[in-house]
Amino acid sequence: MTDQMISADVIGEHNKSNEAALGSDYAALGENLSRRGIDIEAITKKVSEFFVAVPSWGVGTGGTRFARFPGQGEPRGIFDKLEDCSVINELTRATPTVSLHIPWDKTDPKDLKAKGNSLGLGFDAMNSNTFSDAPGQAHSYKYGSLSHTDAATRAQAVEHNIECIEIGNAIGSKALTVWIGDGSNFPGQANFTRQFERYLSSMADIYKALPDDWRLFSEHKMYEPAFYSTVVQDWGSNLLIAQTLGDKAFCLVDLGHHAPNTNIEMIVARLIQFKKLGGFHFNDSKYGDDDLDAGSIDPYRLFLVFNELVDAENRGVKGFHPAHMIDQSHNVTDPIESLISSANEIRRAYAQALIVDRKALDGYQQDNDALMATDTLKRAYRTDVEPILAEARRRAGGAIDPIAAYRKSGYRKKVAGERPAVVGGSGGIV
Amino acid sequence: MTDQMISADVIGEHNKSNEAALGSDYAALGENLSRRGIDIEAITKKVSEFFVAVPSWGVGTGGTRFARFPGQGEPRGIFDKLEDCSVINELTRATPTVSLHIPWDKTDPKDLKAKGNSLGLGFDAMNSNTFSDAPGQAHSYKYGSLSHTDAATRAQAVEHNIECIEIGNAIGSKALTVWIGDGSNFPGQANFTRQFERYLSSMADIYKALPDDWRLFSEHKMYEPAFYSTVVQDWGSNLLIAQTLGDKAFCLVDLGHHAPNTNIEMIVARLIQFKKLGGFHFNDSKYGDDDLDAGSIDPYRLFLVFNELVDAENRGVKGFHPAHMIDQSHNVTDPIESLISSANEIRRAYAQALIVDRKALDGYQQDNDALMATDTLKRAYRTDVEPILAEARRRAGGAIDPIAAYRKSGYRKKVAGERPAVVGGSGGIV
Amino acid sequence: MTDQMISADVIGEHNKSNEAALGSDYAALGENLSRRGIDIEAITKKVSEFFVAVPSWGVGTGGTRFARFPGQGEPRGIFDKLEDCSVINELTRATPTVSLHIPWDKTDPKDLKAKGNSLGLGFDAMNSNTFSDAPGQAHSYKYGSLSHTDAATRAQAVEHNIECIEIGNAIGSKALTVWIGDGSNFPGQANFTRQFERYLSSMADIYKALPDDWRLFSEHKMYEPAFYSTVVQDWGSNLLIAQTLGDKAFCLVDLGHHAPNTNIEMIVARLIQFKKLGGFHFNDSKYGDDDLDAGSIDPYRLFLVFNELVDAENRGVKGFHPAHMIDQSHNVTDPIESLISSANEIRRAYAQALIVDRKALDGYQQDNDALMATDTLKRAYRTDVEPILAEARRRAGGAIDPIAAYRKSGYRKKVAGERPAVVGGSGGIV
Amino acid sequence: MTDQMISADVIGEHNKSNEAALGSDYAALGENLSRRGIDIEAITKKVSEFFVAVPSWGVGTGGTRFARFPGQGEPRGIFDKLEDCSVINELTRATPTVSLHIPWDKTDPKDLKAKGNSLGLGFDAMNSNTFSDAPGQAHSYKYGSLSHTDAATRAQAVEHNIECIEIGNAIGSKALTVWIGDGSNFPGQANFTRQFERYLSSMADIYKALPDDWRLFSEHKMYEPAFYSTVVQDWGSNLLIAQTLGDKAFCLVDLGHHAPNTNIEMIVARLIQFKKLGGFHFNDSKYGDDDLDAGSIDPYRLFLVFNELVDAENRGVKGFHPAHMIDQSHNVTDPIESLISSANEIRRAYAQALIVDRKALDGYQQDNDALMATDTLKRAYRTDVEPILAEARRRAGGAIDPIAAYRKSGYRKKVAGERPAVVGGSGGIV
Repeated sequence: MTDQMISADVIGEHNKSNEAALGSDYAALGENLSRRGIDIEAITKKVSEFFVAVPSWGVGTGGTRFARFPGQGEPRGIFDKLEDCSVINELTRATPTVSLHIPWDKTDPKDLKAKGNSLGLGFDAMNSNTFSDAPGQAHSYKYGSLSHTDAATRAQAVEHNIECIEIGNAIGSKALTVWIGDGSNFPGQANFTRQFERYLSSMADIYKALPDDWRLFSEHKMYEPAFYSTVVQDWGSNLLIAQTLGDKAFCLVDLGHHAPNTNIEMIVARLIQFKKLGGFHFNDSKYGDDDLDAGSIDPYRLFLVFNELVDAENRGVKGFHPAHMIDQSHNVTDPIESLISSANEIRRAYAQALIVDRKALDGYQQDNDALMATDTLKRAYRTDVEPILAEARRRAGGAIDPIAAYRKSGYRKKVAGERPAVVGGSGGIV
Repeated sequence: MTDQMISADVIGEHNKSNEAALGSDYAALGENLSRRGIDIEAITKKVSEFFVAVPSWGVGTGGTRFARFPGQGEPRGIFDKLEDCSVINELTRATPTVSLHIPWDKTDPKDLKAKGNSLGLGFDAMNSNTFSDAPGQAHSYKYGSLSHTDAATRAQAVEHNIECIEIGNAIGSKALTVWIGDGSNFPGQANFTRQFERYLSSMADIYKALPDDWRLFSEHKMYEPAFYSTVVQDWGSNLLIAQTLGDKAFCLVDLGHHAPNTNIEMIVARLIQFKKLGGFHFNDSKYGDDDLDAGSIDPYRLFLVFNELVDAENRGVKGFHPAHMIDQSHNVTDPIESLISSANEIRRAYAQALIVDRKALDGYQQDNDALMATDTLKRAYRTDVEPILAEARRRAGGAIDPIAAYRKSGYRKKVAGERPAVVGGSGGIV
Repeated sequence: MTDQMISADVIGEHNKSNEAALGSDYAALGENLSRRGIDIEAITKKVSEFFVAVPSWGVGTGGTRFARFPGQGEPRGIFDKLEDCSVINELTRATPTVSLHIPWDKTDPKDLKAKGNSLGLGFDAMNSNTFSDAPGQAHSYKYGSLSHTDAATRAQAVEHNIECIEIGNAIGSKALTVWIGDGSNFPGQANFTRQFERYLSSMADIYKALPDDWRLFSEHKMYEPAFYSTVVQDWGSNLLIAQTLGDKAFCLVDLGHHAPNTNIEMIVARLIQFKKLGGFHFNDSKYGDDDLDAGSIDPYRLFLVFNELVDAENRGVKGFHPAHMIDQSHNVTDPIESLISSANEIRRAYAQALIVDRKALDGYQQDNDALMATDTLKRAYRTDVEPILAEARRRAGGAIDPIAAYRKSGYRKKVAGERPAVVGGSGGIV
Repeated sequence: MTDQMISADVIGEHNKSNEAALGSDYAALGENLSRRGIDIEAITKKVSEFFVAVPSWGVGTGGTRFARFPGQGEPRGIFDKLEDCSVINELTRATPTVSLHIPWDKTDPKDLKAKGNSLGLGFDAMNSNTFSDAPGQAHSYKYGSLSHTDAATRAQAVEHNIECIEIGNAIGSKALTVWIGDGSNFPGQANFTRQFERYLSSMADIYKALPDDWRLFSEHKMYEPAFYSTVVQDWGSNLLIAQTLGDKAFCLVDLGHHAPNTNIEMIVARLIQFKKLGGFHFNDSKYGDDDLDAGSIDPYRLFLVFNELVDAENRGVKGFHPAHMIDQSHNVTDPIESLISSANEIRRAYAQALIVDRKALDGYQQDNDALMATDTLKRAYRTDVEPILAEARRRAGGAIDPIAAYRKSGYRKKVAGERPAVVGGSGGIV
């Protein structure tokens, strides 16, 4: 029996008052889908089996270099964070695992595991941090970490990653995600080639420490914190890394880490085709690495990414099991609400992709009937699948409208009373 | 007699050992220019009369939301900052004024003025800060400041700007720069129109408090810290602000605040034509508001901006006196060195623009001789005007190679001994 | 009684076989909306009164500088084009007007009017063309038109625009759209300021010739065909034009004419607020001025634009009546099908914007409840309003599924038999 | 003895009147470089041995989808084009080879070779064209070529490429460049994975036909003519192609084919490191594939690309011999002048990269002295190396100022008298 942060009563009462409307909408949608040859129950089942990991660092309020404006009841440490994560899962039944960031979440693995167990939460990919200096650290990452010119600094960064693997191993994680900020701010500051050689060498050292059943995810990003060049700047460099390291190395795609106008879904398709898609950091963006809620800016793009995933499923791509994780920064919303909403949007995109008439699509593609092909995607996309998502939640013990139920529960107010207020402000970084 | 942070001896010795080479290069350049009908002395004179303000906040090490890695001898407050600014001016003789940021630099204006006087520094535009919360502030700017939905928050932000004017007035400043982070992170979060109405109303209140001989600069920026919409998102909105407020209101152009691919020099031309160019925040960028050193990424663009300024001078545009300020974030360099280098690059662009053969250019433009027109700019641009810049510095008491002289002076080491080390790290904002 | 390109029988039969399913979906949607306090009939009525003009040049197959691949039954001239336009309107009942391009569509206005009348079509804004040279033209537009350095070339361009007004006047148009390609390909090729002065002067001459009840639309575009600078490069310059010319001058927004990442809906809001929004050229784009079908790449963005239009309607903005026009290039689809689909997508965005709960939205905005505010937009957006669109068409005599009915009608095959095949290929422009 | 399009007398006279000034500038530069430890003669020698191929299609006036405005004396066919190319080489002595485009330049290879010989011109990489339909072609490329869903269309495209190899083989070319426009305009139009599989299969067929001493260059491009997805969209996909095909397959980098803000020089470094850089299509761009003159928009970027090439040379990378080609569209200039100017800019970037103090740079990079590292590049970049370029031309029989000599020669006027005027205009593609 797991601890519940949100009482079953709150959820039960909420669902009760929304069941009739949901029933009506679900029936109408079922009838519509049935006319299109789709069994709504099959979709609901697949949706209810689709999960996405939440990031431990995502339940605290984010910020920018200009300021951070904390909210009420900010989590004080990893145990508070896990409780907040549990709230999300209890209401959505879509997020049974948490992704940790070390050293932020560093503590005795036994305690982590026990807390996870008590909340019914597992642990997804581990995340290392060599983009900032931890107190007392021997060598600074100011000029790089895994690709630093100094061997001792590189060794320290490698060591830290190996420690992340060890912690992860103790708590049941099966993957390490490596994102670094290494790069340069000025032309000439770094020799691109030597820097990449050093990076590859450090990564090879980490790779050696990887247990057999683990995967190593490297994450590319165009810029920030480095503003002229970044070592793993795009999927091309990322692919070279995964190819160089070996079969357990894969590329991680963060939707906000690309150049303007990039066709991300095509990159996803290429990585799948060449067996190197490791998984995702879901979020949305309008400008740069904005880390906004998944689907909040360009929901059709999110759908198109899932269209590739479902296409790969349908083609029976061998060994295809990408990791689904959220990576967002919640600056103006209650982080719990944003994560609930994002998990829902991700499932929405998946559900829409599932109801694409793939046989018809294939025919239109063969015939170069561009209009009907794109219309086939659009018909699926514009279907309001919320009744499916709500019903999947309801059946699994979650809430029909999880944000409404969360607000009703008074959880934020409760933790605001328990957790001391945090002062925000600016470090004057500008 | 002003206090000197860098002893005249250090500069004198440095110059002595570089004078012969400079003399030779200056003579050769003079001969080359003379063949092109240009008097090198006239250019050197104009360059030596061109100044750019340095930002008080720029002498501390910058950072990103991921981390800040402080350097040695970080300034502890505005008086340390002014001393660092003085170093820059002593070596370049190009930066006799400092731009302050309130409340970061808030202290008794009399002390500010006295310190400035002792160092031979004046004060340029004042900068208000309503993009972060100051300790003890009654109303938070989390959801906006001058455009906030709440009247009391708006009033507080207006009041803060008026205070900035008052401080500035006491120390000899003649302009207020208003940059706000107000905007939204999600579609629908704000009503664009009402938000802009509130902004205009607040700005009108500030404008009323402006002394007759002051100017009000509003600064546009595409995004960050707001990631879906920003109230003053581009020069179009900025122009509407300046038009709405009145004759003392002008637009400030920060080179890093535009959409990808934007032709910034054209915006500069438009604002000049319609009498609304207030001035610049110089820096350079490759991706977003990267705040890199001026001219470090795209030096030709900087030249093209100055080409517009010199063109306006040449056409005798009435009342044309834009404010030149640097606004950068120095994350991996000694901030003093970056500011020295940037001041130099800005003067370089100006010198290059001065030697454009404008009569020939005009003829080619009339004849639609695109190739020769652009070649006319390129001929000026590719001229190595460093001897002019160095000679202008030398004659004014600065250093022929100011970075070399600075390093020789041991200033950074000295202040590192006096000012306590600062611990960096990450707020876990990500 | 108008001529029908598509027989009423074809439409009637098509509708008959789709009525039952539509009835069921419409009832279910009505029930769902009613629970949300929305009367479906009110929405259906508003949608059926919303129209968008189709471009005469859009019914021919488009192309790129690399190649054009014509389709079957390409229209041979304006009368064929009008017949194709009529097909679109007969099936959608959403496009009762056509926008002409002169000199492409130049012919005796009486004949134009007669043909329009016979088809039940009216004429929307006239479009001038000074971006290419017409055979026999005295002065070339190679180096510009309204902003050319040569006065005779400018006069010719002005004259052409006045002729467009005259033709338009004779056929019932009430607006002139001016889009020019003037700009430069190289820094220095043109003096930005003088070029804009010449443009404004030419436009003033055109403005003088404008009948009292006409509007003049100027259209901005970032680049192409000019690749370094464009005279009307963005909405800032466009605003200055409309302000300088007078009350009958307005800005036209083409969705594909902006810098990457631009928040277009905010520009729309600003232009509405300052009474200078003239109207739209609807289309969609992923990279540049791709001229793809409306809503095909980023349907949420199209919705957000309409959200601003409906917000303005709701706020009762005086004199608010933007012109809605499609401007697309159909390179790989049957142009008639793309225009049918686009008209539908535009109405879809309008319908979705109509069902936004604006009272709730306003409350969330006041409270800075970003999550619920954006969710309020999303709830409306994700509603599948196709039953409303289909029902509006059906009631007005159009087709429930206009693409299906069009294909059934055999129209393309019929005109392919009548109109000679066109050879495509490349001019080797590359 | 080769035919000379520009008489030696014209060049001789021109040089005579410019020799004194050049001598003076060359001596001054030599003295300056010598102080920096650089032997000017060594640089001049390397520059004089650096060549870049000109594109046969580049000597005709280019255009956009909106219009083409031909110039005077447009070449009527490949033999006129070769004569124009010869003019460029005679004046610059930097462009001894021409790159052909088939079928545009298709004619009896013997005649091509003879004409080349008579002009002293060789032939660089061959270019195939499957992005437009040639008259009489059996299968259209409207929906793709090498990746078309139809096997017969793919076979036709493969066959065309093999024919290009055969022609090239007969005239001494050693490489085939494959650029295709294949992609899609709408989400769903093509299945990304199957399309790429078909492309790879077609390319494998071409690769099989490649002589042992040939190289196959595949060229990536983000968009245009396809506006939603492109099969070879970026260097990531391009790398996969080269890896899949084999050791003779390399990636071609066109500077205008990347997403906004892309760090192209880093891509160049990566491709060198993994032995897959085939060569370049040089040009410049501000927005998209603008095909402007090399170095005209961002000359520092061009320098940074050459910085990577010289760095690779210095590191002694094995088998490193990238192909240098220009690919531009000259819409508003005399194409011969633009190509002369571009060849010069490319050599300028090379010369500047040669004088980078690489030992100092390496030291600064090791020490993370970002400021001095970038300054080391800047010192080389801002050196006005025009005297070196001019002297290299002069010594090889070219012109000190090739544009001035060209204008003096009257070549354009002469061919305008011989070659009939071409009518421009628009295909109404828009």
